[in-house]
Amino acid sequence: MADLRGPVLVVGTGLLGTSVALACRRAGLEVYLKDASSEHLRTASGLGAGKAYDGQPVQLVVVAVPPDHLGSIVADALRDTDAIVTDVGSIKSQPLAQVAAVAPESVGRYVGSHPMAGSERSGPLAASATLFEGRPWAIAVHDQADADAVRLVTELVEACGGVPLQLTPQEHDQAVARTSHLPHLMASLVAGRLVDAPEEHLALSGQGVRDVTRIAAGDPRLWQQIITANSAALLGLIDEVQGRLTEFRAAISADERGPLGVLLAEGVAGTRAIPGKHGGPPRPMRSLYVAVPDHPGELARLFADAGEIGVNIEDVHIDHDPGRPVGLVELLVEVDRAEHLRVSLGERGWDLHS
Amino acid sequence: MADLRGPVLVVGTGLLGTSVALACRRAGLEVYLKDASSEHLRTASGLGAGKAYDGQPVQLVVVAVPPDHLGSIVADALRDTDAIVTDVGSIKSQPLAQVAAVAPESVGRYVGSHPMAGSERSGPLAASATLFEGRPWAIAVHDQADADAVRLVTELVEACGGVPLQLTPQEHDQAVARTSHLPHLMASLVAGRLVDAPEEHLALSGQGVRDVTRIAAGDPRLWQQIITANSAALLGLIDEVQGRLTEFRAAISADERGPLGVLLAEGVAGTRAIPGKHGGPPRPMRSLYVAVPDHPGELARLFADAGEIGVNIEDVHIDHDPGRPVGLVELLVEVDRAEHLRVSLGERGWDLHS
Repeated sequence: MADLRGPVLVVGTGLLGTSVALACRRAGLEVYLKDASSEHLRTASGLGAGKAYDGQPVQLVVVAVPPDHLGSIVADALRDTDAIVTDVGSIKSQPLAQVAAVAPESVGRYVGSHPMAGSERSGPLAASATLFEGRPWAIAVHDQADADAVRLVTELVEACGGVPLQLTPQEHDQAVARTSHLPHLMASLVAGRLVDAPEEHLALSGQGVRDVTRIAAGDPRLWQQIITANSAALLGLIDEVQGRLTEFRAAISADERGPLGVLLAEGVAGTRAIPGKHGGPPRPMRSLYVAVPDHPGELARLFADAGEIGVNIEDVHIDHDPGRPVGLVELLVEVDRAEHLRVSLGERGWDLHS
Repeated sequence: MADLRGPVLVVGTGLLGTSVALACRRAGLEVYLKDASSEHLRTASGLGAGKAYDGQPVQLVVVAVPPDHLGSIVADALRDTDAIVTDVGSIKSQPLAQVAAVAPESVGRYVGSHPMAGSERSGPLAASATLFEGRPWAIAVHDQADADAVRLVTELVEACGGVPLQLTPQEHDQAVARTSHLPHLMASLVAGRLVDAPEEHLALSGQGVRDVTRIAAGDPRLWQQIITANSAALLGLIDEVQGRLTEFRAAISADERGPLGVLLAEGVAGTRAIPGKHGGPPRPMRSLYVAVPDHPGELARLFADAGEIGVNIEDVHIDHDPGRPVGLVELLVEVDRAEHLRVSLGERGWDLHS
């Protein structure tokens, strides 16, 4: 029966490896570190992520190296230790196939994983024990995986504050092609158009273009490995995008608003398909109805009161009959905050309807 | 000599119009509101944005209506008042041409503008007096613009907390095609690919895809107007993107890392071309060098000390000679904070080198 008690060996002390190590240390586990770069290793150790590894027995190995090296380093870890082995790489099918080819007898001890957290920065100095807090963390359960290995990797995810999600390696790779690799390519294409733009044009950059292009700052050497290792899933999506972009171009060129509106509406629907913050399910909401006098500043006073009461208003609708001097405002709040807001607004003299 | 003293008339009480009105009220100006939607007007008034307009004389009219209506509403304002008129629309050439055609005698009183601020939400309830704080705000100065009009619009921008930037209407439209309209299309294409994805795949959505797709949630009816009104500038960029996407596809399909790396590096360069936060110039930095003992936790202690001292570390480099027990850490901080950090770290026993 698996039970995460350490020691944990983290191989690769970049952003992800060092963050896993820091999170494990925070959880009270003994952590050893290994890295081909002595500078990274010393930096991670200097940050309190663990001690340099020197062959001590460990319970779990976490491989946090670039995609090109995943398969061979995981196989090394299976050969050199009898520990359970996981990794935190961005692709899951290719390394599994490599491990199964060279170490078929111990592939059951390997269960890959992938935390959906990162940064456009890299290296141990960008690491944080809280990087995975509340973030989805895929566990790529394959046919030959030992149940104990799956359980121990799940405990690692939980110790790091992540939200474990089980998928097959193939499903994982299809999912991240859509939610990570295609967005990266497109961000890169948008950012690339800024390179030769006049400075006074770039001065108009607002938050929108910053958000769209942020991830394009990621390390090209890492991303070319990720993208080529997941090319099968990605090419199909690129074809879809090329088709839609051709449609966009035709609609814009011909000033056809109908088709353009359909394409834009598809985008709106897509943003709504993304689950609530941190990958959790949408939270249940409740509506409160408040009568608001039609005087300047009354709505502002209502929102200020809700703020002081400490309840977050998730959405607002106003139902106003122009013939009446009072409007009915619908406030959407989380179910477990609704009663507190209802009572507190009532105490402040607001007229609540059910 | 222009001198913004009000009253200001805001036509259109959506997100932008109501935010301008709230910012003007905060600046102590009298504000009148006008909107075809009585619900929007009452909501904006309820938020304290101003009083309903009833023909009072005004000094400045701010037109904040969708692109399709900009030209005619600006022309109406020039005809109905002798005020200076601006607008806050996303495109500048087309409305100017429309105004010049129907009101050539008063086009000098019209100077369009465009704050680089917004939200994927819309309507007066999403408005805020601080929406424009520190944001670039283009002022589209055309050949026939009165100097007084340019000055008054500049004062409006400053009263709202924005950073005024003068461009010609044509330059503005080319700039926003690159920094706003193309990013919107691409965000929409990425978001569109999520619509039919299985729920367990979408559960892997991290911050990256959220950031890339955020602006795609914008109102399609508004965006189809913006895009078609700026089609000339946008089509050229779409062609560039299609070309690059074809190159990406070929490189991925053939597993050619060289060309793929070049395309990704172009994206990295693009993210660096975006000027510092809020459109200001990059701030000058100074380096401090600190000797850090090679013990676990020492770097963490250095960063904690810098945090307590209250100086933001903008970047860090570590120069570590593996033969020595001490590493030299370079801290980059804003010039005017460097001396305070140097003295304070010295007081805490750190060994600083120059």
